[in-house]
Amino acid sequence: MIIIGEKINGTRKAVAASILERDAEFITKLAKEQAQAGSSYLDVNAGTSPEREPEDMIWLVNTVQSAVDVPLCLDSANPAALDAGLGVVDRPPMINSLSGERDRIEGVLPLAIQHKTNLIILALDDTTGIPETSAGRVEIVHKLAAMALEGGLTEDQLFIDPLVTAISTGTQNAMITFDTIERIREAYPSAHITSGLSNISFGMPLRSLINRTFMAMCIASGLDSAIANPNDRELMEVVMAAEMLMNKDRFCMNFNKAYRAGHIGPSK
Amino acid sequence: MIIIGEKINGTRKAVAASILERDAEFITKLAKEQAQAGSSYLDVNAGTSPEREPEDMIWLVNTVQSAVDVPLCLDSANPAALDAGLGVVDRPPMINSLSGERDRIEGVLPLAIQHKTNLIILALDDTTGIPETSAGRVEIVHKLAAMALEGGLTEDQLFIDPLVTAISTGTQNAMITFDTIERIREAYPSAHITSGLSNISFGMPLRSLINRTFMAMCIASGLDSAIANPNDRELMEVVMAAEMLMNKDRFCMNFNKAYRAGHIGPSK
Repeated sequence: MIIIGEKINGTRKAVAASILERDAEFITKLAKEQAQAGSSYLDVNAGTSPEREPEDMIWLVNTVQSAVDVPLCLDSANPAALDAGLGVVDRPPMINSLSGERDRIEGVLPLAIQHKTNLIILALDDTTGIPETSAGRVEIVHKLAAMALEGGLTEDQLFIDPLVTAISTGTQNAMITFDTIERIREAYPSAHITSGLSNISFGMPLRSLINRTFMAMCIASGLDSAIANPNDRELMEVVMAAEMLMNKDRFCMNFNKAYRAGHIGPSK
Repeated sequence: MIIIGEKINGTRKAVAASILERDAEFITKLAKEQAQAGSSYLDVNAGTSPEREPEDMIWLVNTVQSAVDVPLCLDSANPAALDAGLGVVDRPPMINSLSGERDRIEGVLPLAIQHKTNLIILALDDTTGIPETSAGRVEIVHKLAAMALEGGLTEDQLFIDPLVTAISTGTQNAMITFDTIERIREAYPSAHITSGLSNISFGMPLRSLINRTFMAMCIASGLDSAIANPNDRELMEVVMAAEMLMNKDRFCMNFNKAYRAGHIGPSK
């Protein structure tokens, strides 16, 4: 499972403050704890105003890169911030994200192609927003994936996001995500499928239970990556069990090792 | 979700002793606690020697029926015991189980057809035991389902068991079950798909975690019934969440009601 650690995100209050104050210690802590928990990428989102976002992104990238060896997922809708981040990364990055929105196609896609980065593709566009059918989402994915592949990215550089909407606003919403995942998996066997899953439980009680259960079901449908909190122990236990059940853990070795090390199960 | 409560099973020591001693109080307790936890059926397995099994089955059925209103799943490989149980049931029962083994086809199937009962069908036979491929399992299911349907059972009376083998003995084993479930769901849209899931974690640590995660993934594949312990709170929480995510809980009402009543989430 390719976990993209979600915590260094300037839309969170404490992170925003630490960016404004250049509090490297706080960011270093978030980077280290997510890296140690097994993140494959760390999302970095400065979340500040467009004018200062490029310099904040540079500071964030440099700060995280000094702390850990994990590659970064540069998270912004602002091409200037992404460009600034791409100028200082010292390891192959991911960009979060391209969508079918015109400004993303014009501003984000060319950067991904120029730097040959991994790229998150969102199944939404200007016309319909998030389509309410899996067919509608897959149609947008086809269009965007074609552009990225024509530009020279390889299929396994694509991290396709089927999108997740709240079960409380429509009880068919999880099924739409499962079906979108299955269709994408079939159409793009070497692409990755990723998403932030916690929207599913918005407005409901027992959000962690719903999120964990949804994670297992998305993995069963073909999800192989998630933008998540790698320090959520109960969630990561489910991820390890589900990966093993999907025949992705030879001799159940990862699961058994994680158990013996106390990373899953009762803390040691 | 159609939960078949598994606890009244004579292969468990305490249950066997209570059957031999005609300890109605103990059996009544197991029946009531499983019924209150939302079982749709209660499995009853006397588990005693062939000579005394028919009379033990009659006592068990009568004892459980006096305690609760839930219908029974008569569990035996012994046609005489099933016949005895069928003679005293006062509500539409299920039979556990038909397989492709000759003695079951000759001894169990005629009883199910004669009494028009619900029927669990196991994907195994004398020739191969449990096939190692989903195609092999589905082939056996086709043969047995055809016999049952020709005999006059309806598709929704069939509870088809894809079978579960331990992940510790073969890391492809969960995938074989998922694939078998999907093929059965496609071939028999109105049939039920059921199984005891806990074999999956045999020989592994953190068995409950693996069982719960597997449950969510099996439900995502199309499982709509399970032979399980309805008093396992964490398992039932996952079942409720997964059913909601499969769009089987209108307005999320069951989940929210169970939460408010304290049946899921922190105990009240």
